[in-house]
Amino acid sequence: MASARLADPDTTESTNDISGTKSNDKHGKDTRYRKVKDEIKQVGSESKFHVTPVSEEEHELNNTVPARPTPELKFDIDDEADTLSNHNSITALLSSKFRDIQKRLKQYGIESPRFRKRLVSRWESMNYDVCENVLYLKDQEKYKSKKWVTLRWLSKWLVMFFIGLGTALLAATIYYVVEKLAHYKFELIQHYFDECAKNNCLYQPALLWMGINLVVTLAGASLVTFLQPLAAGSGIPYIKSYLNGIKIPGLLTFRAFVAKTVGVVLSILGGLACGKEGPMAHSGSIIAAGFGRGRINFCNGKTLSFYSVFRNDHEIRDFVAGGAASGVSSAFGAPIGGTLFSLEEAASFWNQDLTWRVFFSSMVACFATNFLISAINGDPTKLADPGLVRFNAFKFDLKFDLIEIPVFIFMAVIGGLTGALFVVMNYKLTVFRKRYLDKNWIKIIEAGLVAVVSAAVAFGLMVGVNECTDKAPFDSHAVTASVYCSDKKHNSLSTLFLTTPEGCLKALLHDPFESHGPVSLVAFILVFFLLGVWTYGLSVSSGVFIPCLAIGAAWGRLVGIGVANMMPENPNLAANSSLIKQLDVGKFALIGAACQLGGILRTTISLTVIIVECTDDISFGLPIMIVLMISKWVGDFITTGLYDMNVEVMGLPTLPFECPPLCDDLRASDVMNAPLATFKTKEKVENIYRMLKEETFCGFPVIEDDPRTPGKGKLKGLILRNQLLVLLKKKIFCPEGQVPPRNITIKDFRDFYPVYLKVSEIELSEEEMTYVMDLKPYYNPSPYTVEQKFSLPRVFNLFRGLGLRHLIVTDENNVPVGIVTRKDLAKFRVGSKRGLVKIEQLKIQDK
Amino acid sequence: MASARLADPDTTESTNDISGTKSNDKHGKDTRYRKVKDEIKQVGSESKFHVTPVSEEEHELNNTVPARPTPELKFDIDDEADTLSNHNSITALLSSKFRDIQKRLKQYGIESPRFRKRLVSRWESMNYDVCENVLYLKDQEKYKSKKWVTLRWLSKWLVMFFIGLGTALLAATIYYVVEKLAHYKFELIQHYFDECAKNNCLYQPALLWMGINLVVTLAGASLVTFLQPLAAGSGIPYIKSYLNGIKIPGLLTFRAFVAKTVGVVLSILGGLACGKEGPMAHSGSIIAAGFGRGRINFCNGKTLSFYSVFRNDHEIRDFVAGGAASGVSSAFGAPIGGTLFSLEEAASFWNQDLTWRVFFSSMVACFATNFLISAINGDPTKLADPGLVRFNAFKFDLKFDLIEIPVFIFMAVIGGLTGALFVVMNYKLTVFRKRYLDKNWIKIIEAGLVAVVSAAVAFGLMVGVNECTDKAPFDSHAVTASVYCSDKKHNSLSTLFLTTPEGCLKALLHDPFESHGPVSLVAFILVFFLLGVWTYGLSVSSGVFIPCLAIGAAWGRLVGIGVANMMPENPNLAANSSLIKQLDVGKFALIGAACQLGGILRTTISLTVIIVECTDDISFGLPIMIVLMISKWVGDFITTGLYDMNVEVMGLPTLPFECPPLCDDLRASDVMNAPLATFKTKEKVENIYRMLKEETFCGFPVIEDDPRTPGKGKLKGLILRNQLLVLLKKKIFCPEGQVPPRNITIKDFRDFYPVYLKVSEIELSEEEMTYVMDLKPYYNPSPYTVEQKFSLPRVFNLFRGLGLRHLIVTDENNVPVGIVTRKDLAKFRVGSKRGLVKIEQLKIQDK
Repeated sequence: MASARLADPDTTESTNDISGTKSNDKHGKDTRYRKVKDEIKQVGSESKFHVTPVSEEEHELNNTVPARPTPELKFDIDDEADTLSNHNSITALLSSKFRDIQKRLKQYGIESPRFRKRLVSRWESMNYDVCENVLYLKDQEKYKSKKWVTLRWLSKWLVMFFIGLGTALLAATIYYVVEKLAHYKFELIQHYFDECAKNNCLYQPALLWMGINLVVTLAGASLVTFLQPLAAGSGIPYIKSYLNGIKIPGLLTFRAFVAKTVGVVLSILGGLACGKEGPMAHSGSIIAAGFGRGRINFCNGKTLSFYSVFRNDHEIRDFVAGGAASGVSSAFGAPIGGTLFSLEEAASFWNQDLTWRVFFSSMVACFATNFLISAINGDPTKLADPGLVRFNAFKFDLKFDLIEIPVFIFMAVIGGLTGALFVVMNYKLTVFRKRYLDKNWIKIIEAGLVAVVSAAVAFGLMVGVNECTDKAPFDSHAVTASVYCSDKKHNSLSTLFLTTPEGCLKALLHDPFESHGPVSLVAFILVFFLLGVWTYGLSVSSGVFIPCLAIGAAWGRLVGIGVANMMPENPNLAANSSLIKQLDVGKFALIGAACQLGGILRTTISLTVIIVECTDDISFGLPIMIVLMISKWVGDFITTGLYDMNVEVMGLPTLPFECPPLCDDLRASDVMNAPLATFKTKEKVENIYRMLKEETFCGFPVIEDDPRTPGKGKLKGLILRNQLLVLLKKKIFCPEGQVPPRNITIKDFRDFYPVYLKVSEIELSEEEMTYVMDLKPYYNPSPYTVEQKFSLPRVFNLFRGLGLRHLIVTDENNVPVGIVTRKDLAKFRVGSKRGLVKIEQLKIQDK
Repeated sequence: MASARLADPDTTESTNDISGTKSNDKHGKDTRYRKVKDEIKQVGSESKFHVTPVSEEEHELNNTVPARPTPELKFDIDDEADTLSNHNSITALLSSKFRDIQKRLKQYGIESPRFRKRLVSRWESMNYDVCENVLYLKDQEKYKSKKWVTLRWLSKWLVMFFIGLGTALLAATIYYVVEKLAHYKFELIQHYFDECAKNNCLYQPALLWMGINLVVTLAGASLVTFLQPLAAGSGIPYIKSYLNGIKIPGLLTFRAFVAKTVGVVLSILGGLACGKEGPMAHSGSIIAAGFGRGRINFCNGKTLSFYSVFRNDHEIRDFVAGGAASGVSSAFGAPIGGTLFSLEEAASFWNQDLTWRVFFSSMVACFATNFLISAINGDPTKLADPGLVRFNAFKFDLKFDLIEIPVFIFMAVIGGLTGALFVVMNYKLTVFRKRYLDKNWIKIIEAGLVAVVSAAVAFGLMVGVNECTDKAPFDSHAVTASVYCSDKKHNSLSTLFLTTPEGCLKALLHDPFESHGPVSLVAFILVFFLLGVWTYGLSVSSGVFIPCLAIGAAWGRLVGIGVANMMPENPNLAANSSLIKQLDVGKFALIGAACQLGGILRTTISLTVIIVECTDDISFGLPIMIVLMISKWVGDFITTGLYDMNVEVMGLPTLPFECPPLCDDLRASDVMNAPLATFKTKEKVENIYRMLKEETFCGFPVIEDDPRTPGKGKLKGLILRNQLLVLLKKKIFCPEGQVPPRNITIKDFRDFYPVYLKVSEIELSEEEMTYVMDLKPYYNPSPYTVEQKFSLPRVFNLFRGLGLRHLIVTDENNVPVGIVTRKDLAKFRVGSKRGLVKIEQLKIQDK
């Protein structure tokens, strides 16, 4: 593998093509060599790849014991090759033909990017590992007293408190603004509706509705697109990736905060099929990062700085875990679920002290949200609204009977299937968008179009289906339009469409049995499903929880109506039968909502807990858990979940929890990046500057300067790109032989966090280039290392377990020979194809 | 530190005193050298210890920057030294006098063992790290096909299913047996009570009660004491330590299962103040280990073996996590809490796939328990009893008002204080027991005594207090005795004492407002508190959850009565006032129960979730969470929790989640065990045999046989004691120069799992002693290593993050110089003393 650079010229050329234009060092990529290697693996040598280095011992053993069977599996290097089917000659021929065509297309540059089969090189790991250099130890010295330890401990709890409080304030504000404005908007539309139904001027409400939607959505989309595109969508895939250990520049900034929070209000007022719950996790995280950094970077470039002691990836990440938890907690009133949400991604970093702090912060958020929303609703001491959305307003205790379980399971299968359909359709749409709708103005126009279509379709259905009901809706404040219905009745779809998606969900769960007939429900399901698919991925701030739940609740209600009508009429219960029916539809609507959510998002443990907490009824939690698991399994059989799909499309190198199976033949030397760029402990400034300019590596092993073996000295430590840049900027170097300057502290490094310097910002004179920099006080003197012969699972465990960014591979003399980074491990992905395990190796590309 | 062995003779002597008699190699201790070192640290050199190795860089830096301030903190090496107070001359004098006296006492051998300041050397780590030797890789080769990967995956899920089912069956059986027999017992006693109250023969029920208690408890205590002493208590401290990574021989055996399950039934029937919930976690774990090993070792020495594929510490531990979760889940009907219970201890091993399996198993357990108990109670499809104990039978929805929060917080403080009192009293008792009641027959007699006293006191109170009530108890099946009350009334204490502790808890939570007067409640609280303290730690199988909850519920009820009487009488609500009062006492009883539990056990996240799930009402979960956190904080301020106290007394080296603060001056070379015992890749049998016999190390680095530097070769791998023993037993060696035999597979090693061979079982002839063993195919070729200069926090993270047993310390030439094991890290413990952080270094002793 070390001979990777000597590959045949056209492969190398095509690689340079890509890297030549894109390899600016904005984010400091360390992908160049790796890319060359990968291309070779991918294109050149399908058979060469699986060269298991058979060790001496194995040879010896093979002499005495029967030869081991040839492994049945080769890695699935060609994406199309289905290694499962036993190719007979015809399919083999066809498949080789197909590959030929593909190859030729590739040569002409028409190859379509395979969005789910590649990692994007610009995503980097966080520096979670503490760099214990001399500066750090000196800084720590200050905090060695018990007073400081206690103070530090207390301040962490205090920051968590404010994170929870801030998130709750935000949640309550969004709640208040959305409720007031949305109610006003829908009352206006309803007014025109009812007026015009009599006077035959229905074009008026239609135009009004579409007009409001268009203007508001355009504003929201512009805000997101121009201020911070990372604020689009729910942000949960990004936050999950961040917690997984990926640095996402711009994700946790004040700009993103404005775009996210104002954006979500505009999206909902713009009538899009989206919720305000998902974005809370992202907003909470930004609040947490702000409190952690103790600094606000305003949009106009100004900065307000308070304290800098927590300014490193390690501390910020811990606070963000609390912020994400608080966000989820205040959105769903689910403090336990929120805590789990933060912690389940962060496998390597779970520790009980942090868990308590995260739990504390999400409890504060839940409690404060409860207090504030109760206050908005009139009675601050009532404490009945711990979150933005709740499912718990059933008139009776939810009870289930064992015989209902098969029905629930059937619903879960439906949920899994339709969920997978949702994901597949949204994936196709996302790919289409990435390819053709990549201009900013097109994105904004698309959002406007969706808003107009949403209004138009809702209008059309309300007028077209025109189902009337005289049952009062569950929510006494609900806007009901009569349209063509008689005086005491109202259009049954109006309670679903003339409200926010949350209101619609509530209506589906709690409205009386007769409120919504099968026809309007079917129409609603179809429309909302398609709108949901279309809306998710728009360049607006929007959550996908509520649309999923509403779709599921609608078809769950349909199932409930079916079950209620099939049940034999019990004369003894005649008086209660309508109550029982109402309970039934509510119950089935709830289960349907859970099934749909499980099918689309593939619930993790945390999502399960969130739903159960939202329902506020643990004995009914059991069927919910069951359907969530089954819908996940069914969906997983077909495709990944929506968030995972997002992560894959964005090429984020998230690390799974365990090394994929079947990988233990691979060694560290097979996956590492080599050759290496190293520095000596005293290095010429020119060399450092050149290396930073020419290479995209983020970390450089520092080696002993041994004249006997130039460039092959023993490992002394590891220095990061951004450390070197700060050192160059601060001119911590001197002519050879002089005492090197030391006028730098750890605070100087913190000042450049999290936006690091670029090489272009460094200015050096000709003379300074000849100077020497002493790296000793700055590099990390004890980086974690493995030997070349370590197997991939062991390398993976070490990397994942410690949350590393760089893992240096050494030979047995402790001389570094390569470096393993996140992408080298994340590129091995286990997938299931038709229910069987499959390993794929992803490409690493620049875009 | 390497010169530790050259210490002054009397220290070394006193050390040999201890190790001379106790260092049999039953459990393979690797403590000898460490102990010498520790003794020196402890006894010899208070000031010498804090020799921070100042590196070259720091020296250099110190030349240019102002000298760093002297650290304010020294390690708290002498247990008594209070490093916090600024000693003025008088206290310094006193304290030095005190230390003098202590030293003299020590010389005469009267020193009391400090149970909470030492680790017991016989506890070893599990081999969680996979040994990827050639045998393992060959074995894995078999499973390289997708079919096998899928099959293996499926079989793990299937085993988890059976674990859940088995645990549920056990729970239902225990429930049935206890309910039936206890009801019969108490009806009998009640019959005599009511008969004799009229005929003045009250000695009859008293004797009957005491007699039954005595006989049954003696049986239970004998079972536990003679069959498996590890089955005493709730087993939760052991299970938590096991999940933390400590090997506890005998914990997960069939004997322990019998002692645990039959024992808990006998304990409850014997009238002890204990519950059947805690032991469920232990029982579930044993079931899991049994299913995982695929083998049952009966008490009579016979063995039934089914499959061996999961027989290693890694897989068994994963199954046990599922078993513990299932146990908790079926005890409390808390599948989420159960899952968290298992996973929060297992910080290093959390991964999502395992989490799902654990969750699945605890869901199955919960569901099956629900089905079975519902069936026992008459209607299997009703599914209203998901666990053995539930708090959810309140007649109204639990609601709380903001103004009640201060009352709750006050209660939480009380709970924390009384909880700490409970722990301190129980600790004193435990130490007393360890010192004086260490004979088996004394233990059994003590248990019998407690049972008799329990009956006598209950009898005395019922007769003495004689409070009568005419309110029907909540539980219609409850046994009520009239004693001296008139016909339609019954003795109010009879519903608390003539029932199992669970029944008592239920009565306290749900009985009508007027059922229990303040006098009987106060009497009950005092008696039950003392009985609870006395009962926990007896040599019987017993849980401590229920007594804690019952004590708390009783004083919570008292608070509730107080609050209800203080509330202004609202004339509008006069009709409802009794209902409101009843709700109030129930609510306050519940909060009190949570406070007491939090104060005694110091709830973790999982315990919080368990209580919330048990209450079945999430909006009321918020105050519960708050009081649990506050009571934990208050209690932590005074002493550790009950389980932690247990772990400390047993000297179990559990690793915390993070390295204690203030330790980053320590290096790997300071904490490691040195000098090292190493083997060459081809080693003489005699050397191996001698080393195993003389040393107690469990792992030996294997080094290159370099003639230039004898005994100082480069690291090649790590071999474990038990591997070597199997190799010797199977005679895998040959005369020098011949081809070594290879007739051994991984199954041969598995056959000796988990009970390993002893050196005494190895028989070697004189000739065989001269043979040579080739270790190459058997040692782990890629053990994790760190360099000497690594700081303690980094060593700790690596060790904890990967769940290691041995971590080899090398010099920069990759030559092993020492080894770090669990105890080297666990001995640094952070404690809080009067709210301030404190680091102590524990001793490592043989007992």
